[in-house]
Amino acid sequence: MTFEERARELVSKMTFEEKMSQLIHDSPAIERLGIPAYNWWSEALHGIARSGTATVFPQAIGMAASFDEELLQKVGDIASTEARAKFNEYRKFGETKKDQGITLFSPNINIFRDPRWGRGHETYGEDPCLTGRLGVAYIKGLQGEGKYRKTDATVKHYAVHSGPEFCRHTIDVNVSEKDLNETYLPAFKYCIENADPSMVMGAYNRVNGESCCASEYLNKKLDEFQFNGVFVSDFTAINDFHNYHGVTKDAVESAAYGLNGGCHLNCGHAYRSLKEAAEQGLITEKTVTEAAVKIFTDRFRLGLFDEDCEYDNIPYSVIECDEHRKVNRKMAQESMVLLKNDGILPLKKDIKTVAVIGPNADYKTSLLGNYNGMPSVYATLLRGIQDSFDGKVLFSEGGCAFWQPYSGNIEEAVVAAKHADVIILCVGITPEMEGEGGDPNNENDFLIGDKRTLDLRPEQQKLVESIVATGKPVIYVNVSGSSMNLSYPKEHCNAIIQCFYPGAEGGWALADILFGNVSPSGRLPITFYESLDDLPEFTDYSMENRTYRFFKGTPVYEFGYGLTYSDITEKWTDENTVILKNNGDYDVNYSVLKFEYIPHKSLCDFKKVFIKAGKEVTVKF
Amino acid sequence: MTFEERARELVSKMTFEEKMSQLIHDSPAIERLGIPAYNWWSEALHGIARSGTATVFPQAIGMAASFDEELLQKVGDIASTEARAKFNEYRKFGETKKDQGITLFSPNINIFRDPRWGRGHETYGEDPCLTGRLGVAYIKGLQGEGKYRKTDATVKHYAVHSGPEFCRHTIDVNVSEKDLNETYLPAFKYCIENADPSMVMGAYNRVNGESCCASEYLNKKLDEFQFNGVFVSDFTAINDFHNYHGVTKDAVESAAYGLNGGCHLNCGHAYRSLKEAAEQGLITEKTVTEAAVKIFTDRFRLGLFDEDCEYDNIPYSVIECDEHRKVNRKMAQESMVLLKNDGILPLKKDIKTVAVIGPNADYKTSLLGNYNGMPSVYATLLRGIQDSFDGKVLFSEGGCAFWQPYSGNIEEAVVAAKHADVIILCVGITPEMEGEGGDPNNENDFLIGDKRTLDLRPEQQKLVESIVATGKPVIYVNVSGSSMNLSYPKEHCNAIIQCFYPGAEGGWALADILFGNVSPSGRLPITFYESLDDLPEFTDYSMENRTYRFFKGTPVYEFGYGLTYSDITEKWTDENTVILKNNGDYDVNYSVLKFEYIPHKSLCDFKKVFIKAGKEVTVKF
Repeated sequence: MTFEERARELVSKMTFEEKMSQLIHDSPAIERLGIPAYNWWSEALHGIARSGTATVFPQAIGMAASFDEELLQKVGDIASTEARAKFNEYRKFGETKKDQGITLFSPNINIFRDPRWGRGHETYGEDPCLTGRLGVAYIKGLQGEGKYRKTDATVKHYAVHSGPEFCRHTIDVNVSEKDLNETYLPAFKYCIENADPSMVMGAYNRVNGESCCASEYLNKKLDEFQFNGVFVSDFTAINDFHNYHGVTKDAVESAAYGLNGGCHLNCGHAYRSLKEAAEQGLITEKTVTEAAVKIFTDRFRLGLFDEDCEYDNIPYSVIECDEHRKVNRKMAQESMVLLKNDGILPLKKDIKTVAVIGPNADYKTSLLGNYNGMPSVYATLLRGIQDSFDGKVLFSEGGCAFWQPYSGNIEEAVVAAKHADVIILCVGITPEMEGEGGDPNNENDFLIGDKRTLDLRPEQQKLVESIVATGKPVIYVNVSGSSMNLSYPKEHCNAIIQCFYPGAEGGWALADILFGNVSPSGRLPITFYESLDDLPEFTDYSMENRTYRFFKGTPVYEFGYGLTYSDITEKWTDENTVILKNNGDYDVNYSVLKFEYIPHKSLCDFKKVFIKAGKEVTVKF
Repeated sequence: MTFEERARELVSKMTFEEKMSQLIHDSPAIERLGIPAYNWWSEALHGIARSGTATVFPQAIGMAASFDEELLQKVGDIASTEARAKFNEYRKFGETKKDQGITLFSPNINIFRDPRWGRGHETYGEDPCLTGRLGVAYIKGLQGEGKYRKTDATVKHYAVHSGPEFCRHTIDVNVSEKDLNETYLPAFKYCIENADPSMVMGAYNRVNGESCCASEYLNKKLDEFQFNGVFVSDFTAINDFHNYHGVTKDAVESAAYGLNGGCHLNCGHAYRSLKEAAEQGLITEKTVTEAAVKIFTDRFRLGLFDEDCEYDNIPYSVIECDEHRKVNRKMAQESMVLLKNDGILPLKKDIKTVAVIGPNADYKTSLLGNYNGMPSVYATLLRGIQDSFDGKVLFSEGGCAFWQPYSGNIEEAVVAAKHADVIILCVGITPEMEGEGGDPNNENDFLIGDKRTLDLRPEQQKLVESIVATGKPVIYVNVSGSSMNLSYPKEHCNAIIQCFYPGAEGGWALADILFGNVSPSGRLPITFYESLDDLPEFTDYSMENRTYRFFKGTPVYEFGYGLTYSDITEKWTDENTVILKNNGDYDVNYSVLKFEYIPHKSLCDFKKVFIKAGKEVTVKF
């Protein structure tokens, strides 16, 4: 029997009410049928998240900068392995709570349309091709290729969803068919067609008038993509129908509207009203049955009702094991993007004193991004440098620590700089300064989450200028999950490294790059703009003048930009063949990007290859 | 010429207005006289504070637990050395800002009267003798014994000041002459008579109707103690006269009242109104002159107007140097108090897996206390254990991390516990949960700072009980700067270590104790009560039924309690002589305490000595 046949048989034994009870994320047990409770809501954006200790990889946007599908698939595989290891223990408690299951609401494959979006760092950036390809890699890693599905992957938020956070529950975004097909939907199509994700999560917002969790238009598209899995609502999104969108009048209508609109599983509790909806004749038992069959097909496919699941014996000891940490270190190295280098990097052996300065130098939270696990072993940027450098390391937060009131003691940083041969200036923002609406960790006004500027906070900018004024060599390390205005360091600093939120190994990986143990190999997955003034309104969902594909201005650093320590030349012999020559002294990982012009410039393929110093590699697309 | 003579000469050249300008904490330059600006406000409660990177020693309450005067004097000496090293650099900028000077508003020698007090952890505990003796040691360390004063020490808050924080600016505390003389004033008397602190800081509150910064009664006492230094107000305390206490009607009257009441230096800016007070005839030039002479005597004594000051060449490189870190490690070891040990400690060599569990396991802020510097090298409790143990270290925050919303994932901690041979349970509170009124880092309601219970937060208590229920051996590490109810772990855990806020070396020091590299030697400087119900109202300043000297109930752990890994017997041959015999296998540092009964039990002397295993030491008081 197939999983679906087994599901259909099991569901056929359930009462109408029992079937309805299973369509919410915290599905209760049905003891008479031997069905344990199961909580569908777990997260694994960059490693298994919110479930305690885990290997914490760089934030998604940083992993996107690696342009490394193979490595990202390994990351997904590790996230999945650790999720299973935890689940194998959690299930011994009888029921699994939120964040203890193996249905993972990741990856986030929305297009990072506007640099203000607080959740943009959860995505793979602004390009549909890159997003789709990396989505496939991660989903494959999460889901595995066994008899059973290792964990469920979820592509979200379907669709178009990309801020602002403050109006995510209310906004009706107007999008042209062209933008939908060229920008907002391709990654969903590509992932569904190539990686068969278990779940699609519907977004909070409306698109062209239709609520995403019950949109005729979007459902039709899913049919076109031949999506065959479970459609799950974002948390409370079904209630948004009546609470915010006004497309229904109450929870009963919303539940019916969602179910009839194709949403099988309600993350939230609106579907508790399905019973009343049935009594009012708003839904049929057949619709409920079909949703329940979808849902149980998934549970059977996870091996939850079998004894021979190949993942049931993954031991607890795999969590944060050396092998996982090694992959993480490599991903952290590859996630960093060298944007400028006047020759100061890698640092020379004769350097005796390094000053590590700035509020992001020793700030654990900035390693972690959001939707994260918790590492037990990790290196802040400061610690990474300390551990990797034999000389003296001076440290100053420059009076503008994120977690303390502004002290204004820039002088300490200047003193440290003056005593050093080179300064590593670790500035930028934090996951608390760009995040999800309503996240209590958000530090900005009203927990809104979105950014309001691409500039550094004034006190940090003052710090930067004071350090530059010392005349000492400055390596500018920008920590952010999104575009920041780098025009000042581009003009005034000796080198710039964009390091995103680099995960547990972040500090060691940065040191690997600074001291030349590896060459940087990341490329920007987003455009680095100079100013928000160069962009349309945040609420304008037209792609006109947004992202490298349509932006009419001059970016500070463009999508795809990223230097190595070597000198690689690309010789295209035909449109699908390129000979890469490493003319430098460094072995490098190198991402070769293929663009098409349709008529706008657009990434259509890429490949990351290893090229030894002095060697050539031919890549065929 | 003496410093005072030079001061008098310099002041004699000033105009009335110039003299008045010098009586505020951010004294402006008087260029025509070659006097640079000087900011009197710096802090060094446990190392040089709020001035960037520094050696961060255990919080004061933890250092008190060491009962080690000699070591504390070294700590003061290091704080002072680092303050000078920074000052030598800062002064090159022309003026020194707040926290860049060498007048240090430390130590806090208030009596920790009530366990609710948020600032209690800044003190040396609840005993006047211990507080006075440790105050002297720290002051001597800060001030040095050179031709010039190395840094200024300040005893604060004079007097009686000990919460509640929310009414510290308004309260008029009623204190009996007996309690003043037996409890609240002896440490001030002892420090002034034995260590000659440069400054006394007046408190915010009133005592028996008189504002502390202009109290006839308290001033008379200072004269009795032969205090000859500068009286400085707490920040804005002069404004409290009219704003909160109603003893004056406006800033002009307050300035006059403060100056005439003996307050030479105004931390705050009320003394900007001195000019108007003079115009109204409320103050005389002579009073201003005498205050200015006091203040400049101090500046001369700091060597600020001389070229031969022995501290001017302390180099920047001393900050956080190995020698300083070594003293810090020792102090951190000595600050921890072993309260229970069923024989599980030190941990045996055959242990393979340790689970480190709880929200205080990997929480940097809990190392630092308040009024702290920032270490560049530090070990959380988790990291200390990882660095010191060759086996496997599992980690779980137990779902109740301080810095994230409560996740409720106790199961992860239980799983970790089940996979371990022993559990190190790191719970308690944080400096954000007990702190100073108005500190923006405070997490409790309205930034109030005071504690409302001696119990763990319910989610932590649940975690503790779940871990104990696994039946595995549990070492309970309580992180707090004040009394917590330890009756549950006293009954259910195998060992208890009280580690306060243990400074930058805290994690390594804890590991030193856990793994038996050193024997614990700390003793409680405060009573550990079971419940606030056993105590008088927080606002009741009578000592009746408070602290070990007057408490009528049964504490969970009493003042002075603390175990070692050895077995020391005390044989008193007469009232001033004791033979200490180390009957065990461990070399130990041991504090012998001498109590008198007057008629209540009261510490009257103590001495910390090193006793090799099997040896005897005779101590004469």
